Amino acid sequence: MLINGQHYRTIWEKSPDSETIQIIDQRLLPHEFKTVDLNIIPDYESAIRDMLVRGAPLIGATAAWSMYCAALKSNKYTFREEIKSAAAIIESTRPTAVNLTWALREQIKVAESASTKNEAVALLRDNARKICDDDAAQCTAIGLHGLELIKSISEQKNGETVNILTHCNAGWLATVDRGTATAPIYAAKEAGIDIHVWVDETRPRNQGAKLTAWELMENDVPATLIVDNVGGHLMQHGMVDIVIVGSDRTTHTGDVANKIGTYLKALAARDNNVPFYVALPSTTIDWDLADGVKQIPIEQRNNDEVHLVDGLVDGKIRNARVSPIGCRAANYAFDVTPSRLVTGLITERGVCRADQDAIHKLFPEK
Amino acid sequence: MLINGQHYRTIWEKSPDSETIQIIDQRLLPHEFKTVDLNIIPDYESAIRDMLVRGAPLIGATAAWSMYCAALKSNKYTFREEIKSAAAIIESTRPTAVNLTWALREQIKVAESASTKNEAVALLRDNARKICDDDAAQCTAIGLHGLELIKSISEQKNGETVNILTHCNAGWLATVDRGTATAPIYAAKEAGIDIHVWVDETRPRNQGAKLTAWELMENDVPATLIVDNVGGHLMQHGMVDIVIVGSDRTTHTGDVANKIGTYLKALAARDNNVPFYVALPSTTIDWDLADGVKQIPIEQRNNDEVHLVDGLVDGKIRNARVSPIGCRAANYAFDVTPSRLVTGLITERGVCRADQDAIHKLFPEK
Repeated sequence: MLINGQHYRTIWEKSPDSETIQIIDQRLLPHEFKTVDLNIIPDYESAIRDMLVRGAPLIGATAAWSMYCAALKSNKYTFREEIKSAAAIIESTRPTAVNLTWALREQIKVAESASTKNEAVALLRDNARKICDDDAAQCTAIGLHGLELIKSISEQKNGETVNILTHCNAGWLATVDRGTATAPIYAAKEAGIDIHVWVDETRPRNQGAKLTAWELMENDVPATLIVDNVGGHLMQHGMVDIVIVGSDRTTHTGDVANKIGTYLKALAARDNNVPFYVALPSTTIDWDLADGVKQIPIEQRNNDEVHLVDGLVDGKIRNARVSPIGCRAANYAFDVTPSRLVTGLITERGVCRADQDAIHKLFPEK
Repeated sequence: MLINGQHYRTIWEKSPDSETIQIIDQRLLPHEFKTVDLNIIPDYESAIRDMLVRGAPLIGATAAWSMYCAALKSNKYTFREEIKSAAAIIESTRPTAVNLTWALREQIKVAESASTKNEAVALLRDNARKICDDDAAQCTAIGLHGLELIKSISEQKNGETVNILTHCNAGWLATVDRGTATAPIYAAKEAGIDIHVWVDETRPRNQGAKLTAWELMENDVPATLIVDNVGGHLMQHGMVDIVIVGSDRTTHTGDVANKIGTYLKALAARDNNVPFYVALPSTTIDWDLADGVKQIPIEQRNNDEVHLVDGLVDGKIRNARVSPIGCRAANYAFDVTPSRLVTGLITERGVCRADQDAIHKLFPEK
């Protein structure tokens, strides 16, 4: 996607065959656009642990490149062991990230198939590129399937603006390119459809206000920031045509775990007959769980995310304390939207109903 | 209610028969507790216009005292004219506040019945006291009726903690004393019922995080601050027994206009069979409107409330800019919860269903 009119992925090689990989320090967005060089394993470690990169697919891609780095820096006699011990370090940065573990395992398999260090370097680089390209391709496919939904609303409205509401950042910045929930939005923009996006600010971490608002602006998509409380009012007044959100984990019965507050938007969508779609790569589907509300554990994060809001004060990013000192808080990071409230899932293979039959029909190999 | 263990109303006479009236500068809460003297009409004007006081009942009480001030400062030959011109100044501070206009009209009637300036001063003081006492009494009555609901939940739970969720600040700080939505909470606390309150932070102005959290803490009511996105998740998991909110305007058919986001909580309450109550003085009921969603105009406020969050930075209250510069925003201040989602109204005359028949039965004179 575009930043200042120039195309960027969220992770890239500094130059062809460079040993340096670059990322965006997303902690500084939207106030500062700063790229960071990743040259040694501690660079990758801090990039993931300190959340310079976030979003499961992008974390996976960063982990994949870290294994290329480990091979580069390794001794030709002990490269396999060094890659494995680097993988252990990287894996410990964000223990719950599924894509992180998956990407590291894929790369270890590649490394084990190499007979020399140089071969390992080349194979790991090729596979890191492939993991990035595959992620981008998957998001592109989600975008094209979601585009059909937006196109059909646009036709029903005789070309009038299609209003899309999204929550959190299931955007380009969470993936390698294009995003999940944003992929249909970018595809619609490119197809010349008149669209407008309502961006939930997404308390407590404000990913909507900080990341989604910024990436849509940079890509010239008309967007309006709202606080999380507003969506219901907009839907009551016919100002939302479709809701599209991402997902952190979806049961194979169609229950969707996503950023806290998603369930409230799904309720409002149902109450006002607004279609509610979830865009997700099939890697997000949990084939073992049947009841999301009962079975998906909900992470509680540091309460300081509730008490403190970070933003620009006198040109510097600072924390402002909103609540009284000594105030108790609770900080649930996700909620589960039951499948009965989900109109459909937008996957890389197509759109399906959020129920077990439809999901398994689209993924018969599972 | 209590601040540092000492009893306060939100507006009071500095000493018996003092010419000075005192208020709390609520803009500084919860970070600083500062009382402000009101001595001349410009003091009252800025107290209301600059939102040192807020909440319709407290604005009305402040306006009532401003007329006492106008009489005190007036010339004995022209006191009636001077009081009326002061009323015009005060009325212009917050043009949409119903209680403001009402209190000024009541006081002008009182002034017109006086034959001397001194008599006007005495009558206006007495009536300002009465307006304050009546408001406090009305809130006390709402509290006692709401207490019965909480008591019955406590009995059903065999004395286990009753979890109450509230949104915004329909608290002591918005009225003269005890509040509307908080009145049943304070009554339950005083009755020795084991309660706990979930406090929505209430973006964009954070009245929950700044005011409700603070007043509950000062009055030793166990409370936990949450972001507005969390309530649905809590209700799904049986962690909320009752929702109690206030109202800015309620149709005589039971549709409730209240702080933006109230409707989303009502939807979650209905989806999880959690009782959803609205505490309101009957002065809030609009006897002319029948369809709240269609007929109640929703104020849009300054978008800076969305972009900037104020809080304590290095010991000073500062604004932190969260969103990207140039970002578009929209800021709807209220929404309407249809009566079908409201379990009941808690008024000063008792609890009734949120429908036309029940409301008119409780207020047959209307």
